[in-house]
Amino acid sequence: MPDVEGHPTREEMDLRTVLNALADPLRYGVVSALLREAEGTARTCASFNLPVSKSTLTHHFRVLREAGLVRQVDRGNNRAATLRTEDLDACFPGLLDLLRANP
Amino acid sequence: MPDVEGHPTREEMDLRTVLNALADPLRYGVVSALLREAEGTARTCASFNLPVSKSTLTHHFRVLREAGLVRQVDRGNNRAATLRTEDLDACFPGLLDLLRANP
Repeated sequence: MPDVEGHPTREEMDLRTVLNALADPLRYGVVSALLREAEGTARTCASFNLPVSKSTLTHHFRVLREAGLVRQVDRGNNRAATLRTEDLDACFPGLLDLLRANP
Repeated sequence: MPDVEGHPTREEMDLRTVLNALADPLRYGVVSALLREAEGTARTCASFNLPVSKSTLTHHFRVLREAGLVRQVDRGNNRAATLRTEDLDACFPGLLDLLRANP
């Protein structure tokens, strides 16, 4: 079962859900940006400077989280997201390389 | 430029468009079914027995074609679709293996 934040376990991750999350250009851009950071980097949603409202931003990060692409990390007074690199490599070998090759 | 049928060239193929085409469960199912066939197999749209109207079917095959996933082949009185395996392997190495592993 996904945890209280909606993070699926590896067993629950599904390629179709992941592809659906990546099909949106804004969400693809977030994953692409996280792939360019050092592994494990946590970035706040605001740091991506996306041209959308706060509620839309929250929606997009929920989709990414529920697909298993990012993990939300609480840091005192804000929240940040990291890419679930190890989980994604374990569940969908080749996916991150494919995204890296198509930024 | 895509040809008259809307088939993009390799250079025009874009991963985001491909992911968007695959994000629909019905279209994912068509690609998955073609992957299980011998390479180069052409199947008519009707052969997939999809529970949708003819116009919806036409729409879904257009999305697959315009993304570069399938090539439409005219065969006298009907049309069939083949997977663009070589083009997909050239443009997006690893993608088809990923789909094969997640039928």
